[in-house]
Amino acid sequence: MLSSASSPTLTGAALDAALDDLSATGADFHRRGWSLGTSSNYSVLVGRDPLELMVTVSGKDKGRLGRGDYVRVGADGRPVEAGAPPSSAETMLHVVLARQPGVGAVLHTHSPAATLLSDHYAGQSVLRLEGYEMLKGLSGHSTHQATELTPIFENTQDIPSLALKVEERLNDADHPLQHGFLIRKHGLYAWGADIAEARRHIEVFEFLMECELRKLSLA
Amino acid sequence: MLSSASSPTLTGAALDAALDDLSATGADFHRRGWSLGTSSNYSVLVGRDPLELMVTVSGKDKGRLGRGDYVRVGADGRPVEAGAPPSSAETMLHVVLARQPGVGAVLHTHSPAATLLSDHYAGQSVLRLEGYEMLKGLSGHSTHQATELTPIFENTQDIPSLALKVEERLNDADHPLQHGFLIRKHGLYAWGADIAEARRHIEVFEFLMECELRKLSLA
Amino acid sequence: MLSSASSPTLTGAALDAALDDLSATGADFHRRGWSLGTSSNYSVLVGRDPLELMVTVSGKDKGRLGRGDYVRVGADGRPVEAGAPPSSAETMLHVVLARQPGVGAVLHTHSPAATLLSDHYAGQSVLRLEGYEMLKGLSGHSTHQATELTPIFENTQDIPSLALKVEERLNDADHPLQHGFLIRKHGLYAWGADIAEARRHIEVFEFLMECELRKLSLA
Amino acid sequence: MLSSASSPTLTGAALDAALDDLSATGADFHRRGWSLGTSSNYSVLVGRDPLELMVTVSGKDKGRLGRGDYVRVGADGRPVEAGAPPSSAETMLHVVLARQPGVGAVLHTHSPAATLLSDHYAGQSVLRLEGYEMLKGLSGHSTHQATELTPIFENTQDIPSLALKVEERLNDADHPLQHGFLIRKHGLYAWGADIAEARRHIEVFEFLMECELRKLSLA
Repeated sequence: MLSSASSPTLTGAALDAALDDLSATGADFHRRGWSLGTSSNYSVLVGRDPLELMVTVSGKDKGRLGRGDYVRVGADGRPVEAGAPPSSAETMLHVVLARQPGVGAVLHTHSPAATLLSDHYAGQSVLRLEGYEMLKGLSGHSTHQATELTPIFENTQDIPSLALKVEERLNDADHPLQHGFLIRKHGLYAWGADIAEARRHIEVFEFLMECELRKLSLA
Repeated sequence: MLSSASSPTLTGAALDAALDDLSATGADFHRRGWSLGTSSNYSVLVGRDPLELMVTVSGKDKGRLGRGDYVRVGADGRPVEAGAPPSSAETMLHVVLARQPGVGAVLHTHSPAATLLSDHYAGQSVLRLEGYEMLKGLSGHSTHQATELTPIFENTQDIPSLALKVEERLNDADHPLQHGFLIRKHGLYAWGADIAEARRHIEVFEFLMECELRKLSLA
Repeated sequence: MLSSASSPTLTGAALDAALDDLSATGADFHRRGWSLGTSSNYSVLVGRDPLELMVTVSGKDKGRLGRGDYVRVGADGRPVEAGAPPSSAETMLHVVLARQPGVGAVLHTHSPAATLLSDHYAGQSVLRLEGYEMLKGLSGHSTHQATELTPIFENTQDIPSLALKVEERLNDADHPLQHGFLIRKHGLYAWGADIAEARRHIEVFEFLMECELRKLSLA
Repeated sequence: MLSSASSPTLTGAALDAALDDLSATGADFHRRGWSLGTSSNYSVLVGRDPLELMVTVSGKDKGRLGRGDYVRVGADGRPVEAGAPPSSAETMLHVVLARQPGVGAVLHTHSPAATLLSDHYAGQSVLRLEGYEMLKGLSGHSTHQATELTPIFENTQDIPSLALKVEERLNDADHPLQHGFLIRKHGLYAWGADIAEARRHIEVFEFLMECELRKLSLA
């Protein structure tokens, strides 16, 4: 569903601009309460040959990110340069997503709505979103008469195992991952062809989850 | 209910100022969560002879609008200049509203409250707001003992057909559109003699919908 | 309950600073959703001999106030200078409050919580707030074991009549107005010895009303 | 659970930077509605030999703190310098916390969620938080399969007595205070090795309390 446009390698001013955009995105998400307590992590694809991403360094305040708060990692999820600070513990989730053609940026948020809905619907293992005009903000939906099935994975600290499950679903023709997934009592992952599209997808999911949560609290 | 003051043609610095005001309005609405995910669209009347509007270009982030993110469209809803980027898919709704005497600006928002209430009251096809002091913020209401009947239209991707329905209601002496309308699970349209009045009307509706939604969640 | 410290006449830079502080207060209240849609009005005492106040001009956007958006009014609530723009329709409420010894500023807000609670408790004509540590932010309460009885008046467009009722309660030794009052489905008035104290009182009331409203929505 | 790294004495530019960071933290907490009405108080450890803290001066607007709004206090909770303005009435709570090895900063907030949950669970004297990924933001939790038991103390104006109770719990090997505690209908105290860690702990607790409160309002 994402265009498979080739992603040129990001260097110099273009890379700086990308990191600044990620940092501004983080400041906005932190302000909204979607990335509190140094939670969340963000990445942008730097190049595909070899696969390299810039990922937020573990434990950074997402309201105050600067260019020095990202680390370059390779296809194995490890820092490319010796002595670099460790990237987020969830880096392998970014890597398996970035391996998909057309994925240029991955954003992960921890909102109250994602935390609560991923628990509320854990029994069905899916959050069903349908009939909303806002669904058109997810790349590929051209009408509100769409259904977005957002899988909910059980939370775990075994990230390699979760990354494998995510990769299986990415390649599952019958039940593919579309634009995002939830981890129970944890948060949301969404991605896009570039930072702007990934941010749009996060905003759409967070908006729709806020709607669903408020709907559940109507008397 | 709107004054039919003539709207002089906007050019040069006055047009720039109008676009900057729309962009600042968008940044505020985006911050409040009323225009997330590149949803929403805004327009200002440029002139009536011929009818021309500046409308937001389709798909722009409403928190980061600049002067280049608007396109000039004519009475048919199409860009006046060849090669211009497409304006919002809902441009014809802006055009039928701007055709009304005294309408100088049209704003469309997608808040959680508008999304949920337009669905909750879809059976009655109307959101009834009454007895609130805040109603006086809608042009023409001089007391809180007023009733604002905000029509709810079913959502559709057939915008020309919806534009026709809106136009009929604008000219329906018995049940006229007053200051705004809702589209089910989609959002709010409101307008005014100028950007300031349209923004005031949006703020009033969004405030009152937030009140109504919170009232529905009291035990 | 307010200290009866004499209020020196505000002129020149001190007056400008006071207006700038009111404008910054308005920007913050607007951001919080307490003063949307050009609702609300604010005043600061300029002098007592004769009684003069600077009150917000009617219909101004409270998120964008500047020094020119205030008008000087006298003890009769009318502009002192010929040709001045009209002040808020509710100016006489500001005047009767400013007549009290020790009152140097009056702030009026329209929040969803004030709108809903003033309706919810209209039958008792009072909002009872007790046992909260935050009550200590209201001048004169030195413990959380306090009870603040906030009267609720029915809404009316007859402001002189409402101003009389408020004045009676200000001088009612048995049931005095303490720090603020509510108008049904309308909003909150609070005041203080100066702008900082009035703002603190608004923040305390709005916080406590938010608590009360959220408590009412617990299952 | 906090590292017992020695805390060097803060002087000069390092002290200024610490106060500026506390002030920026206050501005953010005030914006979020966690420190309204001049509520809350914040401190940073200056040195251990002798024990000295900089604590917010009583009654300051937490959205507008400057370097002059802090007072240096000693191990007895009193200002070190003669003629200094009084620090917060709750200074002794800061002092008993700062006495613990590894505590470099203490933050106290008054959010609606803390106010309501500390009352809702007052019967159990504890707020139980478990199974949330966000718990990993509390120093020492390495998995979401953790349980944070946050004690709730009854509110009192007798701060020395409350400070004793807190100190007992800090030294109670069976039921130690971990990262924070609540005071009923009052608010949250949390701390950390430095300002950044204390702020992270506040953000984690406030996030989790917001989740718990919203969960309680689901139908």
